[in-house]
Amino acid sequence: MAASAALKARVPRQSYLKKLAKAEDLIDYFPHGSYIGWSGFTGVGYPKKIPTALAEHVERNNLQGKLKYNLFVGASSGAETENRWARNNMIERRAPHQVGKEIARGINNGNIKFFDKHLSMFPVDLMYGYYTMHKENNRLDVAIVEASAITEDGGIVPGASVGASPEIIQMAEKASCYKHLLSNSRLMAGQIIIEVNTATPSFYGLHDITMTDLPPRRKPYLIMSPEDRIGTPYIPVDPDRVVAIIESDYPDQTQPNAPEDESSRAIAGNLIEFLQHEVKHGRLPDNLLPIQSGIGNIANAVVGGLASGGANFKNLRVWTEVLQDSFLDLFDSGNLDFATATSIRFSPDGFKRFYDGWTDYAPKLLLRSQQVSNSPEIIRRLGVIGMNTPVEVDIYAHANSTCVMGSRMLNGLGGSADFLRSAKYSIMHTPSTRPSKTDPTGVSCIVPMCTHVDQTEHDLDVIVTEQGLADVRGLSPKERARVIIDKCSHPDYKPILQDYFDKAEYECMKKGWGHEPHLLWNAFDMHKNLNENGTMKIDKWA
Amino acid sequence: MAASAALKARVPRQSYLKKLAKAEDLIDYFPHGSYIGWSGFTGVGYPKKIPTALAEHVERNNLQGKLKYNLFVGASSGAETENRWARNNMIERRAPHQVGKEIARGINNGNIKFFDKHLSMFPVDLMYGYYTMHKENNRLDVAIVEASAITEDGGIVPGASVGASPEIIQMAEKASCYKHLLSNSRLMAGQIIIEVNTATPSFYGLHDITMTDLPPRRKPYLIMSPEDRIGTPYIPVDPDRVVAIIESDYPDQTQPNAPEDESSRAIAGNLIEFLQHEVKHGRLPDNLLPIQSGIGNIANAVVGGLASGGANFKNLRVWTEVLQDSFLDLFDSGNLDFATATSIRFSPDGFKRFYDGWTDYAPKLLLRSQQVSNSPEIIRRLGVIGMNTPVEVDIYAHANSTCVMGSRMLNGLGGSADFLRSAKYSIMHTPSTRPSKTDPTGVSCIVPMCTHVDQTEHDLDVIVTEQGLADVRGLSPKERARVIIDKCSHPDYKPILQDYFDKAEYECMKKGWGHEPHLLWNAFDMHKNLNENGTMKIDKWA
Repeated sequence: MAASAALKARVPRQSYLKKLAKAEDLIDYFPHGSYIGWSGFTGVGYPKKIPTALAEHVERNNLQGKLKYNLFVGASSGAETENRWARNNMIERRAPHQVGKEIARGINNGNIKFFDKHLSMFPVDLMYGYYTMHKENNRLDVAIVEASAITEDGGIVPGASVGASPEIIQMAEKASCYKHLLSNSRLMAGQIIIEVNTATPSFYGLHDITMTDLPPRRKPYLIMSPEDRIGTPYIPVDPDRVVAIIESDYPDQTQPNAPEDESSRAIAGNLIEFLQHEVKHGRLPDNLLPIQSGIGNIANAVVGGLASGGANFKNLRVWTEVLQDSFLDLFDSGNLDFATATSIRFSPDGFKRFYDGWTDYAPKLLLRSQQVSNSPEIIRRLGVIGMNTPVEVDIYAHANSTCVMGSRMLNGLGGSADFLRSAKYSIMHTPSTRPSKTDPTGVSCIVPMCTHVDQTEHDLDVIVTEQGLADVRGLSPKERARVIIDKCSHPDYKPILQDYFDKAEYECMKKGWGHEPHLLWNAFDMHKNLNENGTMKIDKWA
Repeated sequence: MAASAALKARVPRQSYLKKLAKAEDLIDYFPHGSYIGWSGFTGVGYPKKIPTALAEHVERNNLQGKLKYNLFVGASSGAETENRWARNNMIERRAPHQVGKEIARGINNGNIKFFDKHLSMFPVDLMYGYYTMHKENNRLDVAIVEASAITEDGGIVPGASVGASPEIIQMAEKASCYKHLLSNSRLMAGQIIIEVNTATPSFYGLHDITMTDLPPRRKPYLIMSPEDRIGTPYIPVDPDRVVAIIESDYPDQTQPNAPEDESSRAIAGNLIEFLQHEVKHGRLPDNLLPIQSGIGNIANAVVGGLASGGANFKNLRVWTEVLQDSFLDLFDSGNLDFATATSIRFSPDGFKRFYDGWTDYAPKLLLRSQQVSNSPEIIRRLGVIGMNTPVEVDIYAHANSTCVMGSRMLNGLGGSADFLRSAKYSIMHTPSTRPSKTDPTGVSCIVPMCTHVDQTEHDLDVIVTEQGLADVRGLSPKERARVIIDKCSHPDYKPILQDYFDKAEYECMKKGWGHEPHLLWNAFDMHKNLNENGTMKIDKWA
């Protein structure tokens, strides 16, 4: 098969061009039950051609539910591939994070065995063999990795994300276990397919790649500042393990970012005021410490607030998981000196802006593996300011990041606990309420007890809503409850929550259980009322 | 005041001997409301003379509830001092961990504002000023630190624990904040009192001490193996900040260790079989990886099991928080090459054995600060095997380490989440049941939903009881529930838990919430029945 000029320009390694193939000719590499690793993180840098060819194969041959895979991706993949796989019931097992209506439906209806895991821990647990231990060779069968270019020695230059690609490649490449008595089947396992994307520019130079050693051979990450480089600008690969190269011809299918609104701007305002307060009291330097910010409209408003003149913070640095469009504004404001992440998930307009301004942005930007971007080691050392949005927070400062009503999975834990567990400032920002189907403030995001706990009271320092900010550092649980109800809850819910706390305190003190008072048999009454009557507004605590 | 010969032998720094005082003459250093830091960890290495003198002062002058302190200790202090303070209502605020009936009573009746915190994080949050930010100078007023000896340049050689002493001394010594515009009051703050204990030997050479820098000036801990030294053998101190020296004349008041029993031996047996299985499958080297083991009879049985010939693991290493007597057996078995911790909490007999065998034990032992012993950075790098005992575990592998019935504080989080969040193997071991007042198996330690969550489903790999071992790595929540109920629950509770899960799965699947099925309004029915009828055995799920 002849390579296009565009492909030749990206692939200086001749032996790879000899392995050029079409996606539809590789179906045989993917028997039912295969363990597959994809590149990709937050919907960028994911493989496009082979997943699409496999979906077409299933649709054409009515193999829905008959050709199912164990699928491992650093975080979410492209909606157009992963949702299609879910719709076709092609996913037997999936970890550690996902975004998309069809895949969420498959998880919650039992088609897909999903588990979410700290994004920093997923790649190393994969390397430990924890996710492949029930198959004979304890390896991934195939890795499909998108490259924006190939180096002369066959290394992979990723695109807009690094994610778990280094470990997925390691797990499809060579044995990592402690015994080196490899059977033949082990040596056969592990095939790498590279999709070289010629529809986007080469990202060469934008990455700092580290591979994973196993203990007792692991070493420190010698990173003392967001701009520190400790790796290579590409993922090293044994060229003999690459079984095919595919040309990929369309860019990442991203969506526009969630717009700011009045509530998210109010939250951002409260947060920026808090950061100014911390600088004033000497607990933060004038240029703050490296910032982590999540995805969504509150995160956009916070970063937007930092970009606007009002906040007046200069020489900022960012150590985060994902950069969205608002960081381009922050760069353009001149206040951002450097940013590092594992993924740049820009909107289509954002990518255009980024490519147009490449010579300005690239020297201030570095993409790393998710094991490094989300590393508790580095997050703690740098003293990161971590900010994320939960499903709900309770009056004692536990947070639910994953399961609505304790049961229904949204997207997964993501990096929220990587950052909030180890950050210097662990901040949860949320609107105080969300609408239910019948009540515009039917769901309180401040509840008596979280229906699922992903971040504990031992982790969180600050809760902030559009109503105000609760600084719970150094407070006992009862003090925390008072300040969270007072500062963060919506006026519609303040008396309900205060009543819960007062009753719980009275009942528990009577029994000598007064450290963190709960009415255990009624703790979810607000949720029950939401389920039965469409609002969390209850008349009284039974 | 004249120094004893014993004291002179421990204190080569002449300027300190000039500051020799009696505890009862230092009462004025401790006005009501003071912020005080003590040395000590798990009931060893704590100050004895001044706390006792202050308690006597309160008792003699009927100052109960009128002379109250904000007290910060790395973990638990001596029962004879801290319980006495609690009985005298002398503790206004306390963090991050405690052990003792009287102090637990004070916390649960509202006398003491207590918060528990990850033990690795407490010292650095203290340094950040998070626990002193509501007082004018954002510093501790006084640090009382026990020393086993003093160096010529005035440094403190701790005794059987390091704990948070380095940071407590730093917070009582000099300003750590980002603004260096120190007011006079700030420079005045911070006084250090040293209790030199002459009743126990000098521990010189047994410690590896690191002080804490604040970001952006923090550096990696360059530890790649338990025996690596990166610090000094003493805590450096500015001698001008030392206001008094006291001679302390009795040893740490420890208790005998909890004995093994049939249940804990069965748990240990299941665990050791699992470790052998992991070695066999190439996921662990023959000499395992560094072991962390908690306190209590199960931990004793596990370490005892490793010491006995049957387990047959050689050249073991230990990276843990606390060493108890069973580690002496492990040393004596010849299978333990090196152990490091922040505290050696031996029984009186164990300490005698340790002192008698000093020349054998000391070269294989190192004590570090709790920020280092419990450091997620190092725990993850080394691939520690972490093992702890919870209050309860739920069917989806969340664990409660702190609050009985979600409300009543036991001891606090301790280092459980430091280790279980970052270990390579995160293991919870517990008996499947505990007795209630009326039913020998009235409390199931496997429950549908934990009443308080300290470790999440994203953290735990293995749950083990005397019934069996559930390996939940890589499993979805519903798979986890099936294996935990099957392998770990007590026969009296297996049908009850299975019935909960089946009903929850049916109800949640119907609603499209089937990822982690719960009967949210009935999740605590077993706890309710325990409260009302003295047993968790319920007839049916309402």
